[in-house]
Amino acid sequence: MNTKYLLPAMAAAAIALPSMAAAQDEAALHTSYIFTTLLFLIGGFLVFWMAAGFAMLEAGLVRSKNVAMQLTKNIALFSIAAIMYWLVGFGIMYPADWLIEGWLGPFFAITSLEPVGLADTETALDYASVGSDFFFQLMFCATTASIVSGTLAERIKLWPFLIFVVVLTGLIYPIEASWQWGGGWLSEAGFSDFAGSTLVHAAGGFAALAGAIILGPRLGKYKDGRVNPIPGSNLALATLGTFILWLGWFGFNGASQLAMGTIGDVADISRIFANTNMAAAAGAVAALILTQVMYGKVDLTMVLNGALAGLVSITAEPLAPSLFGSLLTGAVGGLIVVFTVPLLDKLKIDDVVGAIPVHLFAGIWGTLAVAFYTGNWGAQILGIAAIGIFVFVVSLIVWLALKGTVGIRVGEEEEINGLDVAELGMEAYPEFSKG
Amino acid sequence: MNTKYLLPAMAAAAIALPSMAAAQDEAALHTSYIFTTLLFLIGGFLVFWMAAGFAMLEAGLVRSKNVAMQLTKNIALFSIAAIMYWLVGFGIMYPADWLIEGWLGPFFAITSLEPVGLADTETALDYASVGSDFFFQLMFCATTASIVSGTLAERIKLWPFLIFVVVLTGLIYPIEASWQWGGGWLSEAGFSDFAGSTLVHAAGGFAALAGAIILGPRLGKYKDGRVNPIPGSNLALATLGTFILWLGWFGFNGASQLAMGTIGDVADISRIFANTNMAAAAGAVAALILTQVMYGKVDLTMVLNGALAGLVSITAEPLAPSLFGSLLTGAVGGLIVVFTVPLLDKLKIDDVVGAIPVHLFAGIWGTLAVAFYTGNWGAQILGIAAIGIFVFVVSLIVWLALKGTVGIRVGEEEEINGLDVAELGMEAYPEFSKG
Amino acid sequence: MNTKYLLPAMAAAAIALPSMAAAQDEAALHTSYIFTTLLFLIGGFLVFWMAAGFAMLEAGLVRSKNVAMQLTKNIALFSIAAIMYWLVGFGIMYPADWLIEGWLGPFFAITSLEPVGLADTETALDYASVGSDFFFQLMFCATTASIVSGTLAERIKLWPFLIFVVVLTGLIYPIEASWQWGGGWLSEAGFSDFAGSTLVHAAGGFAALAGAIILGPRLGKYKDGRVNPIPGSNLALATLGTFILWLGWFGFNGASQLAMGTIGDVADISRIFANTNMAAAAGAVAALILTQVMYGKVDLTMVLNGALAGLVSITAEPLAPSLFGSLLTGAVGGLIVVFTVPLLDKLKIDDVVGAIPVHLFAGIWGTLAVAFYTGNWGAQILGIAAIGIFVFVVSLIVWLALKGTVGIRVGEEEEINGLDVAELGMEAYPEFSKG
Repeated sequence: MNTKYLLPAMAAAAIALPSMAAAQDEAALHTSYIFTTLLFLIGGFLVFWMAAGFAMLEAGLVRSKNVAMQLTKNIALFSIAAIMYWLVGFGIMYPADWLIEGWLGPFFAITSLEPVGLADTETALDYASVGSDFFFQLMFCATTASIVSGTLAERIKLWPFLIFVVVLTGLIYPIEASWQWGGGWLSEAGFSDFAGSTLVHAAGGFAALAGAIILGPRLGKYKDGRVNPIPGSNLALATLGTFILWLGWFGFNGASQLAMGTIGDVADISRIFANTNMAAAAGAVAALILTQVMYGKVDLTMVLNGALAGLVSITAEPLAPSLFGSLLTGAVGGLIVVFTVPLLDKLKIDDVVGAIPVHLFAGIWGTLAVAFYTGNWGAQILGIAAIGIFVFVVSLIVWLALKGTVGIRVGEEEEINGLDVAELGMEAYPEFSKG
Repeated sequence: MNTKYLLPAMAAAAIALPSMAAAQDEAALHTSYIFTTLLFLIGGFLVFWMAAGFAMLEAGLVRSKNVAMQLTKNIALFSIAAIMYWLVGFGIMYPADWLIEGWLGPFFAITSLEPVGLADTETALDYASVGSDFFFQLMFCATTASIVSGTLAERIKLWPFLIFVVVLTGLIYPIEASWQWGGGWLSEAGFSDFAGSTLVHAAGGFAALAGAIILGPRLGKYKDGRVNPIPGSNLALATLGTFILWLGWFGFNGASQLAMGTIGDVADISRIFANTNMAAAAGAVAALILTQVMYGKVDLTMVLNGALAGLVSITAEPLAPSLFGSLLTGAVGGLIVVFTVPLLDKLKIDDVVGAIPVHLFAGIWGTLAVAFYTGNWGAQILGIAAIGIFVFVVSLIVWLALKGTVGIRVGEEEEINGLDVAELGMEAYPEFSKG
Repeated sequence: MNTKYLLPAMAAAAIALPSMAAAQDEAALHTSYIFTTLLFLIGGFLVFWMAAGFAMLEAGLVRSKNVAMQLTKNIALFSIAAIMYWLVGFGIMYPADWLIEGWLGPFFAITSLEPVGLADTETALDYASVGSDFFFQLMFCATTASIVSGTLAERIKLWPFLIFVVVLTGLIYPIEASWQWGGGWLSEAGFSDFAGSTLVHAAGGFAALAGAIILGPRLGKYKDGRVNPIPGSNLALATLGTFILWLGWFGFNGASQLAMGTIGDVADISRIFANTNMAAAAGAVAALILTQVMYGKVDLTMVLNGALAGLVSITAEPLAPSLFGSLLTGAVGGLIVVFTVPLLDKLKIDDVVGAIPVHLFAGIWGTLAVAFYTGNWGAQILGIAAIGIFVFVVSLIVWLALKGTVGIRVGEEEEINGLDVAELGMEAYPEFSKG
C-alpha cells in the first residue's frame, strides 16, 4: 500500500470528522425542534377546536331563547382570552423573574407591548418555537374560561361575564398555572397534573361554582321543593360539541407531552392518544349503563357528559395507565357525573350544562388518581386544595364585586323572555316556533 | 507531511467512522419512525372525526322524533367499539399465533387485560409505535359499526343494536379483517383492498343489509305498492356530516399508506389525498347532474351520498389511479347511488340513510375496480364474496338470535311516537313544534 | 503505533467520508421534503374544512326556506372547483410556458388528461411532493368560489351559479393568481400578498360584488326607502361555520409559508399561527365593543363577521407583524365590517351574509397594510387595482352573459316560496313549522 496519495485524504478525513459529527448532532436537534414545534401547532389547533365544541355543547343544552347569547359568550370569551393571555397571562405563567418567588409572576409585563418573547429572535426555548408554545398554552387558558360559561348560562348578563373572563384569563388562571407549569411552588412540592385535570378543568369548575352560588339558580328550576328539569333545545348540537371536544382532547393531552423529537416521546404521545380515547369511551359506556340501571332509560346528555368526564379524568395522567387503567379511570369519571348531577340539584346549585360534575368533580378524581402511579397522595391533595381555594375564593370576590357594582343577573322579565331578545335583540332560530 | 501527529487522529477517525455511519442510519430510522407514528396519530384523529360525521349525517336524515336516539346510538357504538377492539378485536385482527392458520386469530386474548402490546416496552413494531397503530386501527373498526346504525334507524331498539355492535366490533370485523390486513389467507390469495372498500365499507354494508332484512321496513314506508319518501329532519346536519366524513377520509385513505418516512411514501400519501378528494368531488357532481337529468331537480341527499360513494369507491385503490382515473372511479360511485337507492326500495329493503348503496354497492365497485390496475379480477371477486358471505351470514344469525330472544324492533306505537320519547324519554328538539 | 493494520481502515475511511457527507446532506433534504409535504397536506385538509365552514355559515345566515339550496351550492361549488382546477386551473396558475409572458398561462393544458404533473415520477418540485402542492393550492381556488355563494344567496338559480363557478375556478382565479403566485408580472412588480387577502378573498369579493349588482337585491330587502333586516335562520350553524373557518385559517395562512424543513420555517409558521389567531380575536372583540357602543346591543352576526374580517385582514402578511401589530390589523378589519355593512345597504347592494365587507373590504385593508412592512404602497395599490379590475370586469361580463341567456334569478313566486321547494323540491327542515 502506498500511503503517499492516501495520506492527504486521510488527513482531510481526520479533520472533517469532528465537524461532521457535530453536523450530525445538530441535524438531529433541528429535526427534533421541528417535530416538537409541529406537535404544539397540531395540538394547539386541536385545542382551539375545543372552543367550538364548548360553544356547540352549551348552545345545544340551553333553551332556544338563550342560544344566541350562549354563542356570543363563547366566541367572545375565546377572543378575550387570546388577548388577555398575550397581554399579561403568558408573562405571569412562565415568569422570567418572579415577583414572589414560586407564587406570583410579573404582571407588570403588561407595560411591554411584546411581552411574550415572540420577537424576531427565537431565543427563549431551545427545543421548540416560542410562538408554537404560546399558541398552544393560550388554548388552555381559553379552555378554562369556556368551562365557566356553561354553568352560568340562561341568566347571567353578557358584559359582567366578560369582565370575569378578563380576570380569569389574565390573572387567575395564569397565577395558579404558574405554580405548577411555570416551575412554581407546587411543582416543587411534587404535585403532578400532566395536562390539567386540576390546573385547567377543576380550576374552571371552581370559578363556575363560585359564580353559580352568587348568581343563584334559574327561575323555576327549584320550585316547591322540586327540581324541574329544563331540557336543552338541540341535542344534535350538544352531541356535535361532545365529539368536537373529544377530538380536541387528543391535542390537549397528547401535545402536553411537550416533545416529539424522539421515538420515546412519540410512542408516549401514542399511548396518550389511545388512553385518552379509552377513558372517554369508558365514561360514556359507564353513564349509558348506569342511567339505564338507575332510571330504566338511557339519558343522552348523561352519556355525553360521561364521555367528557372520562376525558377530564384521564387528563391528569394520560401516559402512565394501561388501557385497562384508563378504562377504569374514565368509567369512574362517568359514574361521578351520573351521581353528582342530582347532588348539585339538592344543593340548589344550578349548573345548566353539568360543567361542575364534569370538570370539577371528575377533575378532582383524575388528579387524585395520579397518586396510584406516583404514590404521593399528599402532594395531589395539596395541589387540588391550593388551586381550589385560590380559584374559588378569588372568583367569589370577583363575582361579588361585579354583583355589588354593575350587577350580574338579568331582570326577571328578561330571563323569562330569553336573553337573546333582551340582551342581543336577535334570536338564534327566529323562524322556528316554540312548542 | 509528517504523519506522526496525524496518525492518531486518523486512527481515531477510522475507528469512529463505522459508529458514525451507524448513528447516521439510526438517526434516519428514528426520524422515519416518528414520521410514520405521526401519520397514524393524525390519520387516527381524522378517522375518529368520521364518527362525528356519521352521527351528524344520520341525525340529519332521520325524523326529528328519532334524532336523540340516533345520536345515542352513534356515540355508544363508537365507545363500545373502542372497548371491544381493545378487549378482543385487535388481538384477533393481528394474531401473533393463529387459532386456525390464516383464518382465525386467538380470541382468548380476552383473558389478558393488556392484550394489544401497549406495554411499557414498545417491541411489537419497528417502524411505528404500537400505540399509534392500535389507535389508528381501532378507528376503522368503529367505522364499520357506524355504517350499520344509519340503515336500521327509526325502528330498532337501542340495546339489541348495541349487542350487535359488540359482536361486530369484537369478532366479525376483526376476523374478516385479519384475513387480509392480519396477513391471513386472503392476502395470500392476492386480494387487494388498500384502505377497506370491502374490509370496512362493504362489510358494514353487509351487516346493515342483514339487519334491514330481519328488521323490516319502517311503518308506512312501503304502502299499497307505493314507496313513501320520508324526508330527513335536518339537511344542514346531514351536509355537515358529509363534509366531516370527507375530511376524515383523508386520514382513512392517506394514513393507510402505513409509512411516511421516505420521500416516496409521503409523495404517495399526497397522491392519495388528491385522488380521494377528486373521487368525492366526482361522485357529488355525477349525482348532481344525474338527478337533474333523471328527475328534473337536483336532490341534495343524493349529492351528499354521491360524494360519500365516490369516497368509498376510491378507498380500495387510492394510490394507483391518475386524477382522471380517480374522477372516473368516484363518478361511477355517484351513479351507483342514484341508480340503486330506488332499487332497494323496490326490494322493500328500507335503508334510512342510503348506507347500503353508498358503502356496500360502491364498496364492491371500488374493490372490483382495483383489478384495472392489478389485473387480478379473480382475487378481487373472491375477496368480496368471502367477506360478503361471512359478514352477511354471521350478521344474519346474530340478528335472528337477537330477534328470537330480546327482540330487535320497538312496538308500533313507540315507532309512531318516535324512539326518542319511547326509548330515551327525551327529545332532541323539544321546543320546535312539528309541522 | 503500528500503521500496518490501521492504514487500510484509514484508507477506507477516507474513501467513505465524502459519500457519508453526501448521505448526510441528502438525509437532511429528505427530512425537509417530508416536513414540507406534510405541511401542505395538513394545511390542505384544514383549508378543505373551510368549505364546510362556508356551508354552515351561509346555511345559518339564510332563511330556512333557502337552506337546502345554500347547502347544495356549497358542496357543488367545491366539487366543481376540484374538477376545474385539475382540468385547467392548476396549469394556468403555475405555467411551464406562458401563452402571454407573465399574464396568461396555457389553458390548452386541458387537452392533456394529466396536466398537473401528478405522474408516477414526481419531478416538478424538489422541496415537496407535487401532489401535496396541488392538493393545497386547489383548496384556495375552492375558497374563492365559496365567498361568492353567500352574497348571492336566496335568489340566484342553481345552475347559472354553478356555471359561473366553472369559469371562476377554471379561469378567473387561476389567471389572476398566476400573476403573483405563478411568478407573473405582479410578483415582478413587487406586490406582496402572503396567503391571499387579495388574490383569494378580495378576488372572491369582487366576483360576488359583480354578481350582486347584476342580480339585484332580494324581494323586500329595500322597500319604501327602508332597509328591512332579514335575520338568518340558525345562528348556531353560523357560529359553527365561523369556528370552522377560524380553524381552517391556520392551514390557510400557516401552510402558505410553503416550507417546514428548517427551524426558521417552523418558527415562522408558529408566528403565523399566533398572529392569525390574534387578528381573529381582535376582529371579534372590535365588533363586539363597536356594536355595543353604536347600537347599545351586541350583534352576534357582526361579531362572527368581525372575527372573519380579522382573519382576512391578516392573511396578506401574517408573518411580519408582532402580536400587537396583528391585534391592530385584525381590529381594523372588525371595524370595517361594522361600518361597511350599512354602507352596502345604502347602495342597495344586497349581500346576504356580509361576504363583501368581510372578504373584499377587509381584504383590501389587509393587502394595503402590508406596505407598513414593505414600504411599497404603490405595488400594493397596483395589485389590488389590477386584480380588482380584472376579476370584477370579467365577472360582470360572465354574469351579464348568463343573465342574457339562461337567466340568473328565480321567479318572484319561487323566491317568496323559497328556493328549496322551487329549485330542489325538498326542505332543509321539513318538520319545523315557520314562526
